Amino acid sequence: MKKPWGGRFKEGTAKTLEEFSQSISFDRRLWQEDIEGSRAHAKMLCKQGIITEEELKQILKGLAEIEREIKEGKFQFKEELEDIHMNIERALIEKTGSAGAKIHTARSRNDQVATDLRLYLRKRVNELIELTEKLEKTLVNVAEKNIDTIMPGYTHLQKAQPVLLAHHLLAYAWMLERDRERLKEALKRLNLCPLGAGALAGSSLPIDRHYTAKELGFEEPIPNSMDAVSDRDFVLDVLYCGAMLMMHLSRLAEEIILWATDEFRFIELPDKFSTGSSMMPQKKNPDPAELIRGKTGRVYGNLLSMLTTMKGLPLTYNRDMQEDKEPVFDTIDTVIMSLRVITEMLPEIKFNKERMKEACGSGYITATDIAEYLVKKGVPFRNAHEITGKIVLYCIEKGKNLNELSIKELRKFSSKIEKDLYAILTPEGSIDSKSSYGSTSKKSVKEQIRMLRKRLKE
Amino acid sequence: MKKPWGGRFKEGTAKTLEEFSQSISFDRRLWQEDIEGSRAHAKMLCKQGIITEEELKQILKGLAEIEREIKEGKFQFKEELEDIHMNIERALIEKTGSAGAKIHTARSRNDQVATDLRLYLRKRVNELIELTEKLEKTLVNVAEKNIDTIMPGYTHLQKAQPVLLAHHLLAYAWMLERDRERLKEALKRLNLCPLGAGALAGSSLPIDRHYTAKELGFEEPIPNSMDAVSDRDFVLDVLYCGAMLMMHLSRLAEEIILWATDEFRFIELPDKFSTGSSMMPQKKNPDPAELIRGKTGRVYGNLLSMLTTMKGLPLTYNRDMQEDKEPVFDTIDTVIMSLRVITEMLPEIKFNKERMKEACGSGYITATDIAEYLVKKGVPFRNAHEITGKIVLYCIEKGKNLNELSIKELRKFSSKIEKDLYAILTPEGSIDSKSSYGSTSKKSVKEQIRMLRKRLKE
Amino acid sequence: MKKPWGGRFKEGTAKTLEEFSQSISFDRRLWQEDIEGSRAHAKMLCKQGIITEEELKQILKGLAEIEREIKEGKFQFKEELEDIHMNIERALIEKTGSAGAKIHTARSRNDQVATDLRLYLRKRVNELIELTEKLEKTLVNVAEKNIDTIMPGYTHLQKAQPVLLAHHLLAYAWMLERDRERLKEALKRLNLCPLGAGALAGSSLPIDRHYTAKELGFEEPIPNSMDAVSDRDFVLDVLYCGAMLMMHLSRLAEEIILWATDEFRFIELPDKFSTGSSMMPQKKNPDPAELIRGKTGRVYGNLLSMLTTMKGLPLTYNRDMQEDKEPVFDTIDTVIMSLRVITEMLPEIKFNKERMKEACGSGYITATDIAEYLVKKGVPFRNAHEITGKIVLYCIEKGKNLNELSIKELRKFSSKIEKDLYAILTPEGSIDSKSSYGSTSKKSVKEQIRMLRKRLKE
Amino acid sequence: MKKPWGGRFKEGTAKTLEEFSQSISFDRRLWQEDIEGSRAHAKMLCKQGIITEEELKQILKGLAEIEREIKEGKFQFKEELEDIHMNIERALIEKTGSAGAKIHTARSRNDQVATDLRLYLRKRVNELIELTEKLEKTLVNVAEKNIDTIMPGYTHLQKAQPVLLAHHLLAYAWMLERDRERLKEALKRLNLCPLGAGALAGSSLPIDRHYTAKELGFEEPIPNSMDAVSDRDFVLDVLYCGAMLMMHLSRLAEEIILWATDEFRFIELPDKFSTGSSMMPQKKNPDPAELIRGKTGRVYGNLLSMLTTMKGLPLTYNRDMQEDKEPVFDTIDTVIMSLRVITEMLPEIKFNKERMKEACGSGYITATDIAEYLVKKGVPFRNAHEITGKIVLYCIEKGKNLNELSIKELRKFSSKIEKDLYAILTPEGSIDSKSSYGSTSKKSVKEQIRMLRKRLKE
Repeated sequence: MKKPWGGRFKEGTAKTLEEFSQSISFDRRLWQEDIEGSRAHAKMLCKQGIITEEELKQILKGLAEIEREIKEGKFQFKEELEDIHMNIERALIEKTGSAGAKIHTARSRNDQVATDLRLYLRKRVNELIELTEKLEKTLVNVAEKNIDTIMPGYTHLQKAQPVLLAHHLLAYAWMLERDRERLKEALKRLNLCPLGAGALAGSSLPIDRHYTAKELGFEEPIPNSMDAVSDRDFVLDVLYCGAMLMMHLSRLAEEIILWATDEFRFIELPDKFSTGSSMMPQKKNPDPAELIRGKTGRVYGNLLSMLTTMKGLPLTYNRDMQEDKEPVFDTIDTVIMSLRVITEMLPEIKFNKERMKEACGSGYITATDIAEYLVKKGVPFRNAHEITGKIVLYCIEKGKNLNELSIKELRKFSSKIEKDLYAILTPEGSIDSKSSYGSTSKKSVKEQIRMLRKRLKE
Repeated sequence: MKKPWGGRFKEGTAKTLEEFSQSISFDRRLWQEDIEGSRAHAKMLCKQGIITEEELKQILKGLAEIEREIKEGKFQFKEELEDIHMNIERALIEKTGSAGAKIHTARSRNDQVATDLRLYLRKRVNELIELTEKLEKTLVNVAEKNIDTIMPGYTHLQKAQPVLLAHHLLAYAWMLERDRERLKEALKRLNLCPLGAGALAGSSLPIDRHYTAKELGFEEPIPNSMDAVSDRDFVLDVLYCGAMLMMHLSRLAEEIILWATDEFRFIELPDKFSTGSSMMPQKKNPDPAELIRGKTGRVYGNLLSMLTTMKGLPLTYNRDMQEDKEPVFDTIDTVIMSLRVITEMLPEIKFNKERMKEACGSGYITATDIAEYLVKKGVPFRNAHEITGKIVLYCIEKGKNLNELSIKELRKFSSKIEKDLYAILTPEGSIDSKSSYGSTSKKSVKEQIRMLRKRLKE
Repeated sequence: MKKPWGGRFKEGTAKTLEEFSQSISFDRRLWQEDIEGSRAHAKMLCKQGIITEEELKQILKGLAEIEREIKEGKFQFKEELEDIHMNIERALIEKTGSAGAKIHTARSRNDQVATDLRLYLRKRVNELIELTEKLEKTLVNVAEKNIDTIMPGYTHLQKAQPVLLAHHLLAYAWMLERDRERLKEALKRLNLCPLGAGALAGSSLPIDRHYTAKELGFEEPIPNSMDAVSDRDFVLDVLYCGAMLMMHLSRLAEEIILWATDEFRFIELPDKFSTGSSMMPQKKNPDPAELIRGKTGRVYGNLLSMLTTMKGLPLTYNRDMQEDKEPVFDTIDTVIMSLRVITEMLPEIKFNKERMKEACGSGYITATDIAEYLVKKGVPFRNAHEITGKIVLYCIEKGKNLNELSIKELRKFSSKIEKDLYAILTPEGSIDSKSSYGSTSKKSVKEQIRMLRKRLKE
Repeated sequence: MKKPWGGRFKEGTAKTLEEFSQSISFDRRLWQEDIEGSRAHAKMLCKQGIITEEELKQILKGLAEIEREIKEGKFQFKEELEDIHMNIERALIEKTGSAGAKIHTARSRNDQVATDLRLYLRKRVNELIELTEKLEKTLVNVAEKNIDTIMPGYTHLQKAQPVLLAHHLLAYAWMLERDRERLKEALKRLNLCPLGAGALAGSSLPIDRHYTAKELGFEEPIPNSMDAVSDRDFVLDVLYCGAMLMMHLSRLAEEIILWATDEFRFIELPDKFSTGSSMMPQKKNPDPAELIRGKTGRVYGNLLSMLTTMKGLPLTYNRDMQEDKEPVFDTIDTVIMSLRVITEMLPEIKFNKERMKEACGSGYITATDIAEYLVKKGVPFRNAHEITGKIVLYCIEKGKNLNELSIKELRKFSSKIEKDLYAILTPEGSIDSKSSYGSTSKKSVKEQIRMLRKRLKE
């Protein structure tokens, strides 16, 4: 088949190259955006007197037909036409003759594909923002519902201090707040219009780029035509946002996996979000969480892939840049599925409150409270730390918990210790004693819920 | 040496572990921020009645002495004290006794290191913003100075259409605009205060986190203590900004390397930004550009390194996170040096204007103008493209340039062609004919310079 | 649908999770290997008396039917059966009843999937080795055919010394030699059999792992069942080999792109391995080379993706590891297509021999020969270098080439220079003068061709 | 300072560029190799009659002096001399005059640096092999010592089947076996000599590359001079080996971290391989394991960094390649420290055997044994799996363990079940029942120890 750009060529394209260079197998995803862009472009060409009203009418009719055919699965995509743009243009010409042959006036695939991809990503990034918000809300709701649940807080995966489960969950809500912020920033940067930049230099025809930009809902046309066709920052921004989201989700996933072990037993996973083993009849595995953690790798890989591809490319468009679509499609699909799964699963998880609280009973988890108690009694912190360390060592040797020490035993380490110490040696006492802004006290956690709800409404 | 946290330990630390786990060899960079943070913390402790005025006075005096000693290179950093925080705290205690032993009250290294790193990055990111701005200005200046220089624009590294060198250079200025935007967004997100989050749970002591946040110039305290100590998004944002900047610079570097070849000869590099060969006496190599291109790899590597490290980490602080510093230090150092070198070098590059314009004489670079000419005469674009393709093929076979064809020869391809066509077959004619917003016409380029200057003033 | 592992589950799997966790959409590629593995496993079960001859017969018949159905596109793959293993097992049970229900005896999907993937990769890596060999041969042939073609050799993309095109091309053949070596090493490591490792601990049934290993053409069974199911080194080795191959091809691609520019004009690309522009009628772009260079990013991304996924996974199998297939499938497909395209394209490239030789006339490319000439006359190299540098500077100032200097001019720089110098100031003279092993002299290049042909025969 | 290559330059190098392009701050590590290479080169030059015996003597004396000065810390490294090669050459010339000025005859920094780096990596890779072997031995020893320790084996971090701790540890030994294999392959590929390749084309002087190759202990000279100076595969191979090693270590590290939690309590870490908290007096953190896990990120980053740098570089040497050293130095240092720490720590870890075995009592860990028991009684595996699943579900509902069910209860699920079932419901029974090659039975584990010891002796 003669290529639409084949005027100066004497030989056809090698079959191997056709297969290698085609993008229709993946860029057909952009069909709606491609039609949308052509529609706006045609209207502008008419408004500017470059095509007639009649030609516009034919083009719009033709595009509407193509749209219907694609929707109904009747459109014949052809690999030898390389990409979605040429497939649609060729079909339009077949339907409308010379009117269709005018659609590519003052347009190149270079600005066209950038326009299509920006339109597509705008839609999908909005979807990502919405789903991130939904997970955030879910976290806030689950936190609120479990406002009284106490658990060990960890550093180095060692028990550190008692915290509220709600406080722990809200830490993730705050991560997602940043993710939403980043996505909105990416959105702002991608919502600019390259259409009309032509191949790289603009056009000598009297086109109106502000009109098409507005028609397509873009903020404004991109002010440098060479930048317009060679920029892929907007793709990378999305790939980075996706990588960060997955990094956050991978941390939550890791905790779900840990909490669901027979050793932690902090949670019970719902049957419908677990799977079994083909060989071991007793198994109930936290697959969704493992898959999210595992898929973090591919989302990181997509970011690196595109960064590598763009490195050192001279201006303007280079065919290397065709590699921009698959990674960003895959990242968005993966992140969206991950968000959906975790958002559905989270409210179904059963928290074993008793087990969680009980877990605060070991590991000398209130030791820091003893140190701060001593500080309040005037002991310099570094010494209070030393004294408490020795109390802990004594407990280990005696096989006792902190709250099992007698006042006499305790006072051997410091005469400042009095009976009121015992009040803070319980997990509840420890949490209640916290008074600082942003701490794990119930008051602070409620305040966070209020703050997050407010942001979620915006 | 007894560790400051050694109360509960019976054995000392293995030498191998000390060497392996120390961070003082690289985190000593944070000494100023660490002192700054301690100063604010001490003032707050005093204001809240946790330490006395006298103790505060001693602490501030001690810190001032330590500051002077470090500045003068007299301070003894000790590997066995692990990190900058313990080195300074120990020195303070040695100087002030129990006053110093109180500095770590209601503070953990977990919130302390996050505070220090945020303070440090705030300073360095501001430096990055400034240097990016400076390069942007340089690009605008060089563009303006060369407003009349014509060169071939490329796609696929094949000559595409004539463009103004200024237009080409401004494409980079627009990239840097986005870089500055991203850096500012990163800055906003990192300018929040973790101090007072403690190890993870906050404190039972009556501290005032809003006071220290304000004292240190932070926007506000971070509202969740667990997030405060386990978040490293602010590091990743900087690593990503650096990767994007280097990606942009690597593209410019690639072009400088190409333009400086004997084949392109578009530019002459200044002796002082070139180097020679140890063996080949004639060589004059574009080393700065090659190094920038090459160093893009390390900056990408730093981003990936930290993303990998953070993947799947359960809350809150894990020692893995100590790995946050070296990559971000290296990225900032590398990007800053790269920006400096290219900003200094750019104005020293001699553009061979004649050679550049002459290069527009081959490659049938004005073919698109013929097609648009035909469109203006009523030929549908797709046909105009086909006709022009045939003209090009004819030229190749005859060994002629487009402007060397007679009107008779041209009219064999289309009767719409008339003598006025020749006017746009020159590079100048081609550029002058461009009328669209953002195109390579001189008017559009001047408008871009105006727009960029305005943004640079903000 | 009741899951084959669903005995202990009370609720069915959530639709979202089914969609998220299914792998049948990509692991169906392994259908042949899965059947092959089941066949061997069944034979062994029979040989060991675990199933009867009759049951074996039924199983083999059932598997043959399934094989035919899949080949003919009639097999119904079901997403709710998760993966290729369960799809085939379920179909087998439907066909054979209790015989089929015995196929999974002493087998888990954990050892089964590792077996399938190793079988699959063995086949594909052999394909990669063959195609690499083919490209190597092509390079050797093209080199031999162009044994007399002279071109500038470059360092820093600056003309350095004249070389034979054949020498340059053979450098790539040597890279591919290393690639083949690495692939063979990977092959050796992946050709070990995990089957019979069970879920992780082996089996209490009297299976014969040596038998199945041999039946499937594996070197031997893997000696540790936990390693057998948790190892993915064999996937990473292939991903790394692919990344290295693409790195090498990206360098060749870069050179093809450069050589095809209007500025270099060293080569003319065949029409059938070039593409045009939708807007610019004159364009003929080196797309295959650009795509190869661009796709290097994705192949790197795949390596990073899997490295990231495997990091920090506790033993043994974790669902994260399901992410092993897509990257390695994609890498193999991409590398294979890239090898094919370049192998087909290379012999069709027209080398502009005259232009290449002519390019040796500028850039003072024989300066090193002058220095070595002086060395032969007794001048210490460092001084000879200095003298020659000054001659070059003189040439630049006078606008002359080295061979345009009179003997009088030359002798101003060193009295050691005599008329015989001119003989080495031509590209041919320069090349002929080389005498060291591995140098660009024709003798050395011919020797390399001989050496490579010998290795290619092995 | 006049550069050694400065003959053709009129202006000095910009200070910024000197700082940017210098490599002496990190390549000084190669000083010993650089001297070694120069020594061999000089001997060859003399043997070939290119320099005199007297000159050789002076050169060797000069090099010996430089060697001593560097060792004693008296050598003045100068940034303006760029790199280790020029620093040493300049010093040699200062010491020996025209003899020294001859050392660079028929040599370029391009072949010199490749030689130095290969020599250096040969040494370090041998070190890596040795340390890997040492850790492997340690694992085998610890496994043997704990041959009777039973623990739960996991898949999906859920209890799967009882295994021997020794079996689990040996899985890591087998990983290291592959690591050693890969390192040896890398070693083979890097032990080839580029010296004499010159800048890229070889030399016209009568050098003997086989002599220098042999003198330096290389297998043979590299047969293509362009490949010799542009190849960095040998660096990437090492970076990949390092990444794989760290991946394996990160998995072991993750398990150490898990096992040391209060929830698992499988191990007790030695005080000297743990650290405390600055704020929480009770903490004892598994820092070495966390650091190893965290440092995996940087080692991955180094691999990606170099892959990115090499992508698309045209032949031959480009300055980008100077970026090869820092990542590979860092990877080797990091992996070596990690291997050392874990090798020292492993034998000091106290395994809580009772706790580990006790952990096999929950999680229905012997369910698979029931299924295989039923298979032996003639139940098809898929049905046996279903039956056992139901038994497990019954246990969950009744709050019983498998071995707490009465024979009556059990027989409700299958009449095939008899009293002999109880024998395999204990962890020991389960392990003893395993009979397959490579399984977790004691026999199989002892066989593995024998196999590994044999390989370790080779």
